[in-house]
Amino acid sequence: MRTPLCEDLGIQYPVIAFTPSEHVAAAVSRAGGLGVLGCVRFNDPAELDAVLDWMDANTDGRPYGVDIVMPNKVPTEGSAGDLTELIPAEHRAFVERTLRELGVPELPDGAAGAGVLGWLHSVARSHVDVALKHRIALIANALGSPPKDVIDAAHEHGVKVAALAGRAKHARAHVDNGVDIVIAQGYEAGGHTGEIGSMVLLPEIVDEVGDDGTVVAAGGIGSGRQIAAALTLGAEGVWMGSYWLTTTEYLETHTKSQTMQDALVAATSADTVRTRIFSGKPARLLKTRWTEAWEQPGAPSALPMPLQNLLVGEAHSRIHASGDPSVVAMPVGQIVGRMNAVRPVAEIMAELVGEFEDAVDRLNLAR
Amino acid sequence: MRTPLCEDLGIQYPVIAFTPSEHVAAAVSRAGGLGVLGCVRFNDPAELDAVLDWMDANTDGRPYGVDIVMPNKVPTEGSAGDLTELIPAEHRAFVERTLRELGVPELPDGAAGAGVLGWLHSVARSHVDVALKHRIALIANALGSPPKDVIDAAHEHGVKVAALAGRAKHARAHVDNGVDIVIAQGYEAGGHTGEIGSMVLLPEIVDEVGDDGTVVAAGGIGSGRQIAAALTLGAEGVWMGSYWLTTTEYLETHTKSQTMQDALVAATSADTVRTRIFSGKPARLLKTRWTEAWEQPGAPSALPMPLQNLLVGEAHSRIHASGDPSVVAMPVGQIVGRMNAVRPVAEIMAELVGEFEDAVDRLNLAR
Repeated sequence: MRTPLCEDLGIQYPVIAFTPSEHVAAAVSRAGGLGVLGCVRFNDPAELDAVLDWMDANTDGRPYGVDIVMPNKVPTEGSAGDLTELIPAEHRAFVERTLRELGVPELPDGAAGAGVLGWLHSVARSHVDVALKHRIALIANALGSPPKDVIDAAHEHGVKVAALAGRAKHARAHVDNGVDIVIAQGYEAGGHTGEIGSMVLLPEIVDEVGDDGTVVAAGGIGSGRQIAAALTLGAEGVWMGSYWLTTTEYLETHTKSQTMQDALVAATSADTVRTRIFSGKPARLLKTRWTEAWEQPGAPSALPMPLQNLLVGEAHSRIHASGDPSVVAMPVGQIVGRMNAVRPVAEIMAELVGEFEDAVDRLNLAR
Repeated sequence: MRTPLCEDLGIQYPVIAFTPSEHVAAAVSRAGGLGVLGCVRFNDPAELDAVLDWMDANTDGRPYGVDIVMPNKVPTEGSAGDLTELIPAEHRAFVERTLRELGVPELPDGAAGAGVLGWLHSVARSHVDVALKHRIALIANALGSPPKDVIDAAHEHGVKVAALAGRAKHARAHVDNGVDIVIAQGYEAGGHTGEIGSMVLLPEIVDEVGDDGTVVAAGGIGSGRQIAAALTLGAEGVWMGSYWLTTTEYLETHTKSQTMQDALVAATSADTVRTRIFSGKPARLLKTRWTEAWEQPGAPSALPMPLQNLLVGEAHSRIHASGDPSVVAMPVGQIVGRMNAVRPVAEIMAELVGEFEDAVDRLNLAR
C-alpha cells in the first residue's frame, strides 16, 4: 500500500487521518500514516503550541499535520456577543423547549465554556503561525483554499497544503491557488459535505486536477477494500475522519466521549442525516432524537453560518454532558455502519493494510 | 475483465445494461455484456412478445434479460380512472399552471396515450409469462424480490433472478427469498434510489450476502475505473442504466429523444436532484426548470405512489413533445457528468474494457 504521496509526505502508508484528538493523530503517525490534528478547538494559541510540543515528542520522529478552518478571503470579524443578538427568539425558544422534551438537563452554573472561536479568521491565522514552528508536514484547510500568503508561508517551510473539494470546479480553483493536495470529499462523508457521491466525484476530480496536484479520497473510507477502490479510481491516498472516533486513543483526549462512542458503535450506515442544524451549512450527523426534532412540523429552519453554531453551541454542551446516546449531536459519515467496536489505532491500521492486499489480489483475478 | 458472473450468465464481460431500448439492449449483448430490456412501457403483452422476437433475432445468439416492475405481494388492482379521482385539484392546477409558465405547449387533440400500465401487477405478470417463452438469461425486478412463484418459474427455465437493494437488510431479504443476483444500488444512481453512497453500500451488501448470492454494483458506474473499483469492493459485475441513454442506438427506438440527449450531454454531475415528483418515491432526475418548479415556495408536496405518476404522466408527454432541453423530465444518475457525447454502444464497451485494464495496472503499482 504505497503511492507517490508516501514520498511527498515521508509516510509509510497513504492514509491521512483527520482527528480532533492529539492521541489519535500521534498514534496514526506512529503506525505509518499521517495524523492531522484539527485545531478548531484551540481558542488560545499557547494551548495549541503546548499540544504540538506533545505531538513532536510522541510521534517517534514521524510526520504529522494540522487542520485549520480558514476562509480564502478575510471575513468581517465579530465577537460572539455581537452575533448572538442576531439570533431570533423563536429559535432560542425551540432549542430550549426541545432540550426539555428530550430530557437533556441544564449545565451546572459556570460550566458553559467560551464556545469555539477557531472559525474566526484571526484565531485560525494564529494556528498557522504556531504550527509552522513545529515539525509539521501538512496544513489542511476545511474551508477551501487558504489565503495566498498562508500557502506561500507553508511552502517556504517545506510544508504541503491540502484543501477539501466536493465539486470538480472547486478542485480546479484549489490547484490554481497553489494547493498541493486536493481532498475529494464525497456525499458519504461526515461533517460538511456536498451532494456528489465518492464513486462519481473522485474520478472527476482526478481528471480535473491532472498533473497539477495530488488527489486523496474522502467520504466513505473505512476498510482496505475502500482504500483500494479509491486508488483504482485514481486517488493517491485516502483521508479518513469518522473512523477514528471509535478508537481507544480518542477517549484519552476526549475523556467524556464514551456515550458518543456507544452511539456510533450501535449505528448503521442508514443512521446519519445531512442537515444544516449543526452549523448552518449542510453537514452529515448521526441521526438521533436531537436531529429528528429539527425535522418535525413546526421546527424552525436552520440559521445561516455562523449563527446556527452559536445557537446550538450550549445545547451541544448540554447534550454531551447528559450521557444519553439517543440525543448525541455528532458529525459522522455513512462509514459509521462499519464502526462496530472501539479499537486501538494500530490494530485498525494493520487491518487496513491487510484488507488492501486482499482486495488487490481479488481484482487481479478478474483480468 | 472477467468474473464468475460471466460463467453464470454466459457473457464475456460482467457488464449488465438496463435500458428501455431493445436496440441498446441487443447492442450490449452483441458487444459481450448483458442487455436487459425494461418492460414497463409494454401495456400489451403481444407487443413485448414481438420485441423479444426481434431481440432473439438480433443478438447473435448471445444472452439477454428483461426488467419487470413487480411488487413481492399482489397489490390492489385499480384502473387509472379510479385512481385519478384521488388526485387533489390543487395538484392538477399546479401542474397546469407550471407547464404554462414554463412555456410547454398542450398536446394536439388525441395525442395523449393510455399511460404506462406496466406497474400494474397483472401487466408485469404477463411480461414474465411472455419473457419465459424467449431466450432470456435474467429476469430483474425493480421493486424488490419478485413473488416466489415467479422466482420458481424462472429457475425452472434456467433463468437467473436479480433484484435491486439500497440497504443491506433488503439484500438479505432478497437472497433469503431465492434471488440469485443482488443489484447493490447506491445513492448516485438514477431513478428510484436510496441514501447510502456506493462506496459504503457495496461492501456492506457484499458482506451481508456472502456466499448466498452474487452482488453487482449500480449507481455511479460509467468508466472502466469505476468497474474496477466496484470489483475491488467485492462486486462480481456492474449494472449500468443511465450511461446508455446517450447512445446512438437509443435514438433508434426512442426516435424523439434528441432533446433529452442534448440535455444529458450538457449536464454536469451536480445537475441532478433526488425528488419524489416523478413517482411519489425518491428518484434521481436531471435537474431542470421542471424539477426546480416543484421546489419553489408554495409548490405542493408530491403525492404517494402511484398517484404522483398519474398526476404528471400527461405533463411528461407534453414536456417530451416540447423539444425544450431546459424542462426535460428524465431519471438519470450523477454519472451524467461523464456522458458528454452520443456514441455507439460498441465504442463505449471497448472503452470500458480498456479503462478497466489501465485501472488494474495502476492499482498494482501501489503494492
